[in-house]
Amino acid sequence: MKVVVDAMGGDNAPDALIEGAVQSLELSKEPLQIILTGDESLIKSKLNGKVSGLEIVHTTDVVSSDESPTSALKQKKNSSIAVGIKLQKQGRADAFISAGNTGAVMASSLFILDRLKGVSRPSLAAFFPTLREYIIVIDVGANTDCKPLNLLQFAIMGSIYVEYVLERKNPKVGLLNIGEEPSKGDELTREAYKLLSKSNLNFSGNIEGQDVLTGEADVVVCDGFTGNVILKFTESLRNLLLNYLRIYSRKKPRVKMGISLLTPFLDDLKNKLNYEEYGGAPLLGVNGISIVCHGKSSPTAIRNAIFVANRCAAQKIHKKIEKELRATS
Amino acid sequence: MKVVVDAMGGDNAPDALIEGAVQSLELSKEPLQIILTGDESLIKSKLNGKVSGLEIVHTTDVVSSDESPTSALKQKKNSSIAVGIKLQKQGRADAFISAGNTGAVMASSLFILDRLKGVSRPSLAAFFPTLREYIIVIDVGANTDCKPLNLLQFAIMGSIYVEYVLERKNPKVGLLNIGEEPSKGDELTREAYKLLSKSNLNFSGNIEGQDVLTGEADVVVCDGFTGNVILKFTESLRNLLLNYLRIYSRKKPRVKMGISLLTPFLDDLKNKLNYEEYGGAPLLGVNGISIVCHGKSSPTAIRNAIFVANRCAAQKIHKKIEKELRATS
Repeated sequence: MKVVVDAMGGDNAPDALIEGAVQSLELSKEPLQIILTGDESLIKSKLNGKVSGLEIVHTTDVVSSDESPTSALKQKKNSSIAVGIKLQKQGRADAFISAGNTGAVMASSLFILDRLKGVSRPSLAAFFPTLREYIIVIDVGANTDCKPLNLLQFAIMGSIYVEYVLERKNPKVGLLNIGEEPSKGDELTREAYKLLSKSNLNFSGNIEGQDVLTGEADVVVCDGFTGNVILKFTESLRNLLLNYLRIYSRKKPRVKMGISLLTPFLDDLKNKLNYEEYGGAPLLGVNGISIVCHGKSSPTAIRNAIFVANRCAAQKIHKKIEKELRATS
Repeated sequence: MKVVVDAMGGDNAPDALIEGAVQSLELSKEPLQIILTGDESLIKSKLNGKVSGLEIVHTTDVVSSDESPTSALKQKKNSSIAVGIKLQKQGRADAFISAGNTGAVMASSLFILDRLKGVSRPSLAAFFPTLREYIIVIDVGANTDCKPLNLLQFAIMGSIYVEYVLERKNPKVGLLNIGEEPSKGDELTREAYKLLSKSNLNFSGNIEGQDVLTGEADVVVCDGFTGNVILKFTESLRNLLLNYLRIYSRKKPRVKMGISLLTPFLDDLKNKLNYEEYGGAPLLGVNGISIVCHGKSSPTAIRNAIFVANRCAAQKIHKKIEKELRATS
């Protein structure tokens, strides 16, 4: 598959993007080609000569992180984002990833690739670490105000994503709510509960805040406001733990030895809590593969997002979503 | 002050409630008296004779944890909850705490004590541990669907609570949102941002999920759905860490020594993450003091909630809230 990487987006652009792309080509176990979109001479200056499997498509506009998505879409038709997504529309690539302006990536993906037939709202699905395996939470920020039907569709799209990308059959779906009983929650969750119960999904009922990181459900469904808050909350746990250790070892030098003995444990925990390990968030519901990465993404994060994009493209998960939604509507 | 403790509510009732009440009388640095409401002979059988400062008011009805709040209110007028709250209304007590049915405690508090003049929606404020000091999040579950004015009032009530109970002058208020800029979020948060900006509060703008546990704001304002999810999420971190340590030390026996050297650090972290250490959640906006505790509360949790109730009553924070709301409306 051919994955387009926006070389100009993100806090560490273009270095982290270029480095991540090169790493992914070196380490991929699947067939993989990369197109970098961005300033060609800048990108070339960062590469040590020609890299096998890597090409560059030169673009002139750059969308900044604080730019309005609609103005970026209208005024920057030659941006690394717009051109990158168009390559997929033209059949010259299979997937797109960007660590740039999330709103602009979402708006451009929706405008250029179009939404899949039957999808009311495309949504972002993100991996979360748990005590067991990774799970996903959907939506993590594409839709702040949702209707019950949106949540049902998030559950369908998320289940397909988990089934084909995490290779887990019949994933368990949990509805994030503030009580276990079907009667609990607000109007949105009560109505969504009914729709999910009637669906063909493996719906296990409401789950509460304390159940997210235990891995009770493979797919946690919620509105994009709540999902975005808990995504960022979870991302902050790693640094909090590190800061706390730092403060504590300063106060009590005698526990420093304990910390050094625990290095493998702490490294493992830090990795588990490191969102960079588990790549970006796909925008599910558009007619193609578009993955949004964290603005602070490192080369490792980009590399892992490229692997996820490659797998999504190979599995054609957008086509699977379209087929499933047609069957259930 | 005289604090009423519902002896019949919660997973560990009546033992944890009675034990917590006795501990609070032994350890309180402030003047304190306790009334236990519940089955008098049962309570007496658990006490070792008469306890100074402790009296019992016999009640016959018990509200179960899965009972509908409205039916409990209508049909169980002689419950440990209803009678306990009425004692405050009659001027025979100054505060009420319960680890029982949260909905029933909220409904009874609202019905019996009445809402304060000018308060559109009473709300629950909970302590959260941070790297620095405790902060509060308001609302954590009383109101799932909110209007911008509600969030403004949560901020006012929460600021007073932090000022007088945590003794922190001019507390910083943060609006929980999914972006830093005023234009980010849904309609609710965008409008609430405007109201908060125009208020006399020490409003520091939007804060995101990653900022909650760093202690950026002393008062984090959000709707009760989001607040409840992150409250339970945070409460789960302690057990997750413990389980993770357990799994890991089983796998790698050689890090066991490191864990034992780190015992003081881990105990400190566990305590920080232990919601039992920081008592219950007050229902702010009613004309009195009513505190909801976690259903699983231990004697320590009850003891700390009694201390918070005692301080709220001594400071008459409901009267301060009423005065402030009158001044700002």
